[in-house]
Amino acid sequence: MTEASADFGVVGLAVMGRNLALNVESRGYKVAVYNRSASRTKDLVETHADKQFVPGYTVEDFVTSIKKPRRIMLMVKAGAGTDAVIEELLPFLEKGDILIDGGNTFYEDTVRRSKYLADSGINFIGMGVSGGELGALQGPSLMPGGQKEAYDLVAPILTEIAAKAPEDGKPTVTYVGPDGAGHYVKMVHNGIEYGDMQLIAESYDVLKRVLGLDSDQLAKTFTEWNQGELDSYLIEITSDILTRKDDRGSDKPIVDMILDRAGNKGTGKWSSQSALNVGAPQSLITESVYARYISAMKDDRLAAAEVLAGPEYEFTGDVTATVENIRQALYFGKIMSYAQGFDQLRMASDEYEWDLPFGELAQLWRAGAIIRARFLQRITDAYNEKADLHNLLLNGYFSEIAMKYQAAARRVVALAVTAGVPMPSLSAAVAYYDSYRAEVLPANLVQAQRDYFGAHTYERVDEPRGEAFHYSWYEEA
Amino acid sequence: MTEASADFGVVGLAVMGRNLALNVESRGYKVAVYNRSASRTKDLVETHADKQFVPGYTVEDFVTSIKKPRRIMLMVKAGAGTDAVIEELLPFLEKGDILIDGGNTFYEDTVRRSKYLADSGINFIGMGVSGGELGALQGPSLMPGGQKEAYDLVAPILTEIAAKAPEDGKPTVTYVGPDGAGHYVKMVHNGIEYGDMQLIAESYDVLKRVLGLDSDQLAKTFTEWNQGELDSYLIEITSDILTRKDDRGSDKPIVDMILDRAGNKGTGKWSSQSALNVGAPQSLITESVYARYISAMKDDRLAAAEVLAGPEYEFTGDVTATVENIRQALYFGKIMSYAQGFDQLRMASDEYEWDLPFGELAQLWRAGAIIRARFLQRITDAYNEKADLHNLLLNGYFSEIAMKYQAAARRVVALAVTAGVPMPSLSAAVAYYDSYRAEVLPANLVQAQRDYFGAHTYERVDEPRGEAFHYSWYEEA
Repeated sequence: MTEASADFGVVGLAVMGRNLALNVESRGYKVAVYNRSASRTKDLVETHADKQFVPGYTVEDFVTSIKKPRRIMLMVKAGAGTDAVIEELLPFLEKGDILIDGGNTFYEDTVRRSKYLADSGINFIGMGVSGGELGALQGPSLMPGGQKEAYDLVAPILTEIAAKAPEDGKPTVTYVGPDGAGHYVKMVHNGIEYGDMQLIAESYDVLKRVLGLDSDQLAKTFTEWNQGELDSYLIEITSDILTRKDDRGSDKPIVDMILDRAGNKGTGKWSSQSALNVGAPQSLITESVYARYISAMKDDRLAAAEVLAGPEYEFTGDVTATVENIRQALYFGKIMSYAQGFDQLRMASDEYEWDLPFGELAQLWRAGAIIRARFLQRITDAYNEKADLHNLLLNGYFSEIAMKYQAAARRVVALAVTAGVPMPSLSAAVAYYDSYRAEVLPANLVQAQRDYFGAHTYERVDEPRGEAFHYSWYEEA
Repeated sequence: MTEASADFGVVGLAVMGRNLALNVESRGYKVAVYNRSASRTKDLVETHADKQFVPGYTVEDFVTSIKKPRRIMLMVKAGAGTDAVIEELLPFLEKGDILIDGGNTFYEDTVRRSKYLADSGINFIGMGVSGGELGALQGPSLMPGGQKEAYDLVAPILTEIAAKAPEDGKPTVTYVGPDGAGHYVKMVHNGIEYGDMQLIAESYDVLKRVLGLDSDQLAKTFTEWNQGELDSYLIEITSDILTRKDDRGSDKPIVDMILDRAGNKGTGKWSSQSALNVGAPQSLITESVYARYISAMKDDRLAAAEVLAGPEYEFTGDVTATVENIRQALYFGKIMSYAQGFDQLRMASDEYEWDLPFGELAQLWRAGAIIRARFLQRITDAYNEKADLHNLLLNGYFSEIAMKYQAAARRVVALAVTAGVPMPSLSAAVAYYDSYRAEVLPANLVQAQRDYFGAHTYERVDEPRGEAFHYSWYEEA
């Protein structure tokens, strides 16, 4: 039996877990560390012999080295691995202990584990962690969900290790909601990240292939964009990426040496699948996921490129004006994406009774998170103005920008469609805007068809909502 | 103990089950019928006292009244109800008996039930049934999946009750594949149906709101379209719907009295969720699902319509030429939708090892099915030409039409985007075409970003596929 001296425990010492352990320790806490294979544990404590780490080489030693109520963070590969670790820990845990899952876990798994552990009196916090390796070490954005009482017991540490917003120094952590709420919010954060990245990629594609900008001009354009309302980490790294040369001898920009196949780790896909479940029209993120899928079909595309000709097109417009149109279109697309993402959060919050604090979520992402951006403050402001705001597009700032920039977005989509350059996400943004603001959509015809072939009934424009009518389209059997 | 005299059994006598029972009986079979509440059973046999029905008022009586190996079709509400019925039947079934689930069942449930029943030696066929109530009675399109030997034992009956293709009189039924294959194919059929309906609705919207066509002109336009390559059930009923007057006294076309909120029963959603799982870029169907979701948010839209202005636009083009552009765009969109749908089927077939007979699937849908269309023969022809065709767009007929009609599709999307009328699905079609035929997509930038913030690595254009490279973007910890 080890003496209980550690303030905090970390299980899983791959790069993310290791960096989080270092981050916690650096705030003056004594941190117990455990990894399935002992070598990583050994390596961490030996490399950092001057630091307050307590290595655990058995699960029992690890758990008993932590002061009660124990606060233990799991940084293991999401999925079956998380269940396995929980089972190993469970025999040594006591009522009131707190497990924090910091993995990229599917929120339904978190809901399930939360229920399961509650039976043993163990608290469970499912926490989204954004910011990558560097964020884990220096300050991530944290999205914890679970029992509020348990959160209060870990809040002091989480507040210290979180990033601090550049605007006001506030830590990027807050209580998100019960059980799966934290991992859900992280999932939508990642979906929004897919959307942001795809909008940037589509803009880059048109700048390059339609306007003919070279690498220097491209880098310069994104650098300029980053000075204004588009100011964000992803635009910033884009401009940085575009300045970098190949590191393997060719004289080319590195981006031209990178194969055009984008991978994914599933969170964007989950985000879209959940949007489909809760009834949220989240088209822009979904198109971003599909864009990665098509990119991965490189051989198919090479075969298709041989067969399928595009339009004949040569750009003869004003380059400077068009660059500005693309900038406005990108911001317009971003607004549509966040409007969709927050609508999804609202619908999921209703569905799961999470009571998500929408305005605070945008605050959480101001530092540490991959989608950190100046723009996020506008979202917080919108919810501060009206806590039950139904859609960002109904807020004054966003509606004004959307209306002002729609002309540019329309021009850019028309240009891309005419030139044969795909902009699936920006196209989805414009279609969403025009659908959402449509007093009448052609769904009356769809519903008539459904009633025709399937007797699914319809509502009438001159009768109360919810009353079902059926038309005698034909002699029925 | 009843004497085993019936050739076939039907459980569940709501309108679909009732009509299917009548259909089977009409081919000279003696049909045992059972319903949880006896009144429906009684009503069926009394209303059709001249017919060969054997009413079952207990599960045991029902099962024992059927000749072995028993062939029993379940027509109950998909979900927990199906499991309940199976549990009730199971004690009375014997090895070799065949259950056929004709409900709109999620394919994963079918896979699960197939495994479960196999343990008791019971064969299980998950069968997609399309055609609505009338189809069930007069001839549906059938998509059976399960044990091939079991299929062979029910094939004679299925062949008789199925619809017959107008082109060659062939019945619209064939063996689709193992376990969940039949319900999967039906699910994608439904997804394609969503896409077809949405493309028609978008065309109708532009014809009406941009070109200003009145109801008579709209009906006439769809009637004309139905004479050509767009010839299909959905276009046909659209032209019929547009000629109908309100049945509740107003002098207006019924379509103008139907509220623009479209419902859904989940199969389109499942189809998109599965596409996301198997990695198939099925954007057009997904946009169609989202379009129904936005349509359902009527109150949000009314609020947004007050706030969010669209563009100023007045159509000054050539109406006749634009109508023809819209017709071509619709056919272009349809081709993209089927290309995506069959790509999803191919990827699912690989994933689940179903070996789906792609060309025959299009044959199954030529009659009975809601998506029946002249166009389907082209799909069969394409797979007859090349059984391992990777994508419909690589077939000569489809690539030629796509290239020929792309100009119209681009013009129509540009028109709609400029005019402020949403065409989410047609926009997705054009973006898909331009993505699929793109030798280079901007996914190189996306992958560079992923490597930058998450060290996710990338492949290089000058090195073999699968080799992972990482760039030193910054000093790492």
